[in-house]
Amino acid sequence: MKKVEDFVRTIPDFPEEGIMFRDVTTVLQSAEGLKLAIDSMIGLLDGVDFDVVVGTESRGFIFGVPIAYALGKPFVPVRKKGKLPCETISASYDLEYGSAEIEMHKDSITPGQKAVLVDDLIATGGTIEACTKLIEELGGEVVKIVFLMELAGLKGREKLAKYDVASVITYEGK
Amino acid sequence: MKKVEDFVRTIPDFPEEGIMFRDVTTVLQSAEGLKLAIDSMIGLLDGVDFDVVVGTESRGFIFGVPIAYALGKPFVPVRKKGKLPCETISASYDLEYGSAEIEMHKDSITPGQKAVLVDDLIATGGTIEACTKLIEELGGEVVKIVFLMELAGLKGREKLAKYDVASVITYEGK
Repeated sequence: MKKVEDFVRTIPDFPEEGIMFRDVTTVLQSAEGLKLAIDSMIGLLDGVDFDVVVGTESRGFIFGVPIAYALGKPFVPVRKKGKLPCETISASYDLEYGSAEIEMHKDSITPGQKAVLVDDLIATGGTIEACTKLIEELGGEVVKIVFLMELAGLKGREKLAKYDVASVITYEGK
Repeated sequence: MKKVEDFVRTIPDFPEEGIMFRDVTTVLQSAEGLKLAIDSMIGLLDGVDFDVVVGTESRGFIFGVPIAYALGKPFVPVRKKGKLPCETISASYDLEYGSAEIEMHKDSITPGQKAVLVDDLIATGGTIEACTKLIEELGGEVVKIVFLMELAGLKGREKLAKYDVASVITYEGK
């Protein structure tokens, strides 16, 4: 029986030397890998009481929507600046060089809603930390954060220390 | 009983005067709307013999992955230039001002594979036409193209005349 990690393609020294890039496209382009990945992430939500799935553009959409669909929940997209047509709130996060901004519709979360955040990978945790701020600014509560893959060496969990964080696959390095 | 179109938010004169912007986020942020949208798109694939779902960054991911998951098929992402880590092929398409390029991994489609292309909206059809070229360059066959929404006034179907195209919702205007 195959495991999800058997479907991940690792590319050494990409995008720069010393980085082991974990490529999720090989998981997706196998029907078995795709099903295993989504079902494993759903498994991490077992017993969690929540109202809505939130995912960021664009790889958070890949896993967030099928999880929402399978569990009969709504999905709220967090997008890059300037993509959402109605009134938004925004948060910024640091990149290696400079910073980036993400946005969420003001009416996408109602006060008291319990949100699950979904993404493909946690590296430094900056994007997801910005997402938690957006959800909380709208009065929502982040009850769980689920990743397919975690790069433990980058210590993203430290940024998310006050949340319940779970990953299907943990890589020790960067 | 509600229909999918009841969940679409229409924003007049966005992003410019005369355009009726069809906002899909209100479909997604309703559990009922999300389920209806995906099940309706799956309904359009009834009886279609295919091997793989292909979707473009980023709204094609929103609908493509749950359809692939529900039907037990693989999903191939088409991404903006520079996002895919392995060897790619690329195609460009015209924007209102200038052009843009999309890419697909060379090993993502094998010759003879039957592909279904999925996207949220067909406007002028330029992006999807570029996707069909990528699939065909790799030896795949586009057996069906499925959209949630179609802006018939922009005549995107004319660009895709040789394909089997279906939409859940058709708006007559632009």
